[in-house]
Amino acid sequence: MSELNQEETNPQTARESPHRQTERTQLPPRDPNDHTIYIGKKLAMSYVLAVVTRFNNGDNEVKVKARGRNISVAVDVTQIAKNRFIPTLKIKNVEITTEELTSDDGRMSRVSSMEITMNK
Amino acid sequence: MSELNQEETNPQTARESPHRQTERTQLPPRDPNDHTIYIGKKLAMSYVLAVVTRFNNGDNEVKVKARGRNISVAVDVTQIAKNRFIPTLKIKNVEITTEELTSDDGRMSRVSSMEITMNK
Repeated sequence: MSELNQEETNPQTARESPHRQTERTQLPPRDPNDHTIYIGKKLAMSYVLAVVTRFNNGDNEVKVKARGRNISVAVDVTQIAKNRFIPTLKIKNVEITTEELTSDDGRMSRVSSMEITMNK
Repeated sequence: MSELNQEETNPQTARESPHRQTERTQLPPRDPNDHTIYIGKKLAMSYVLAVVTRFNNGDNEVKVKARGRNISVAVDVTQIAKNRFIPTLKIKNVEITTEELTSDDGRMSRVSSMEITMNK
């Protein structure tokens, strides 16, 4: 389980590869207390498991974050976690933003981003 | 323009066909003052145009609603509307729910649903 969590919380491995290099140089160092789960290309159930595990380990608040097409998967993850595993789960906040990414050849592209904060 | 708006706000034509019959019988009659824009299979720009038109016509609040994979398109629509057309646009509220649909053969399926309320 710890291996899975490790992967989900580490942006260098959890994000899609095309932006990896860019993000490594652009983003500020991640807060070690930031337990955000990044939604990537795995099945939704993998992320549901990560969310449920966090709550079971005593976290009062869990965040999932996704970009682009993965946003709908993030929503599925929160709904599956709530409907099947944690009936008391509440959606505390939903944040919608646009992230600007610079690709290796210097072109800038925008992608929608969503962060969902859950508590129970 | 009125023809486009008509289509967006009419659930019988705006939704995907597989669920059409089910929804017609299950959902309560729609409030005629409900100006929700339903995100379907068109390009995001069609819905952006609908949102911008609503605000330009004097609406203070515009909602977009989407289900399943279309949720990420709904988020794109709000971000494009804000970044390119209405800088003062604010995301007032984001509602995440699960809708239960009964197909013609009686099976029940769940789909994530999202409603985003914008104002300016």
